Amino acid sequence: MSENAIGVFDSGVGGLTVLHELRRLLPGENLVYLGDTARVPYGTKSPETVRKYALQAAEFLIAQRVKMVVVACNTASSFALQLLQQQLSVPVVGVIAPGADRAVRLTAHGVVGVIGTDGTVHSDAYPRALKALQPQVSVVSVACPLFVPLAEEGWAEHEIARLAAEEYLAPLVAAGIDTLVLGCTHYPLLKPTLKAVLPPSIKLVDSAEETALVVQQLLTDRGELNAQQNGCWQFYVTDVPTRFVRVGSGFLGQPVEPVERISLPACPTCSQESPQGRLS
Amino acid sequence: MSENAIGVFDSGVGGLTVLHELRRLLPGENLVYLGDTARVPYGTKSPETVRKYALQAAEFLIAQRVKMVVVACNTASSFALQLLQQQLSVPVVGVIAPGADRAVRLTAHGVVGVIGTDGTVHSDAYPRALKALQPQVSVVSVACPLFVPLAEEGWAEHEIARLAAEEYLAPLVAAGIDTLVLGCTHYPLLKPTLKAVLPPSIKLVDSAEETALVVQQLLTDRGELNAQQNGCWQFYVTDVPTRFVRVGSGFLGQPVEPVERISLPACPTCSQESPQGRLS
Repeated sequence: MSENAIGVFDSGVGGLTVLHELRRLLPGENLVYLGDTARVPYGTKSPETVRKYALQAAEFLIAQRVKMVVVACNTASSFALQLLQQQLSVPVVGVIAPGADRAVRLTAHGVVGVIGTDGTVHSDAYPRALKALQPQVSVVSVACPLFVPLAEEGWAEHEIARLAAEEYLAPLVAAGIDTLVLGCTHYPLLKPTLKAVLPPSIKLVDSAEETALVVQQLLTDRGELNAQQNGCWQFYVTDVPTRFVRVGSGFLGQPVEPVERISLPACPTCSQESPQGRLS
Repeated sequence: MSENAIGVFDSGVGGLTVLHELRRLLPGENLVYLGDTARVPYGTKSPETVRKYALQAAEFLIAQRVKMVVVACNTASSFALQLLQQQLSVPVVGVIAPGADRAVRLTAHGVVGVIGTDGTVHSDAYPRALKALQPQVSVVSVACPLFVPLAEEGWAEHEIARLAAEEYLAPLVAAGIDTLVLGCTHYPLLKPTLKAVLPPSIKLVDSAEETALVVQQLLTDRGELNAQQNGCWQFYVTDVPTRFVRVGSGFLGQPVEPVERISLPACPTCSQESPQGRLS
């Protein structure tokens, strides 16, 4: 077993849904969460920029002696997972493969829908992951830019969310999907609304849940599960924590604390610098 | 007169509403627009970070030999205007003072509403600007995080926008405002929806329009108006331009071109570097 923490990072609060699932499934694990709030969102940035930011974030977690890094961000999973797996000395798990894996096992007719941010949908990450697992699968993707602010606003179950969901999901239903992947870490909050709008025959895949299951399996295989009763957690952010704490508590269902602000080198040319050297 | 361009910057596409008004009011002016898309949004960042970013953006425009800088971003206007006015050799106009100035002249009962992003509302910039002009004025502010994605999605006049506007504006109407300042450069796209939701007695102040009027007056006073018939424009962005071009054309009502990608030093510690030296 290992008492070292599981390190989790995202560009902001979204990854807290993954942290929530990890806590639920693995209550004995210590957790370290980094929200790179000074540079949020990753989704609008270029792949090179995202790779540099993700590497800096992961290196910060490594400096906290984590036993594993979870990339709880679809954009970073899409662009940086391979790089992190090559560069880091601990296992690295992203959020895309676990959801894709579940989707190909669930789909009856081989027509899978994917919803995500503009960046995730344009990255083509899910179609690639799904087709790598099952080449015949047909994938229909729709970007849903309103879902993130709806979740952050606490309006995930408001009539506005229902109307937006109807708009976004209509082409997916028309395309005959039988499985829908929630390809953004914010979207688990919208599950009740999505279920209400979708025909009951369409199955939802929650990437946060699937990712937690993959982490559990990996720690079990490596003999690194933490046997203690109640793990602790620590939050880090790269900008003023006020908003992160306020919105994040809605995501976690409990207070986001303790939280500490750190600095990461924001300039791509600084990416070789040790993040520990820049703590403020 | 001066044939030098007017420089305009924002963290993203929002400032294009200001550019649109400048073009409408001053068709002979050459315009240079910088969208700092690699670092969007400014609204979630700390005041120090915003000041550094704004200074870098303004310095890039100065290097393009602009005769004036328009800070077409509420966050940067709130945190960085004074600094830019001290540091730059050309006049600098923000978007907050023009809107505040119009509002205190329009309000009959001295109760002014302000809507903006989370960052703008929490910065308290409008209440400060309004009270500086008229200490007795009462200000009621509401953050409307859904309005930016609604505008960018092309849904500014959709039923979803109407419902969101009803939610956001209800407390302002209940508070008895007679004037409403659109404190975000994205919001002019929502004017038809806001007008439909608000009682007709409430007057709307469009900061983009007011800012263009202030620029016109300033250039007139300085004898720097460009007498040519049709000015040209040039767009710069700090990340891949695809999304900026697509969403921006909806804001401008015409194609966003020519557009060129540049690099600005993203690291606060690099802020002394000349941005020209980092063009890519």
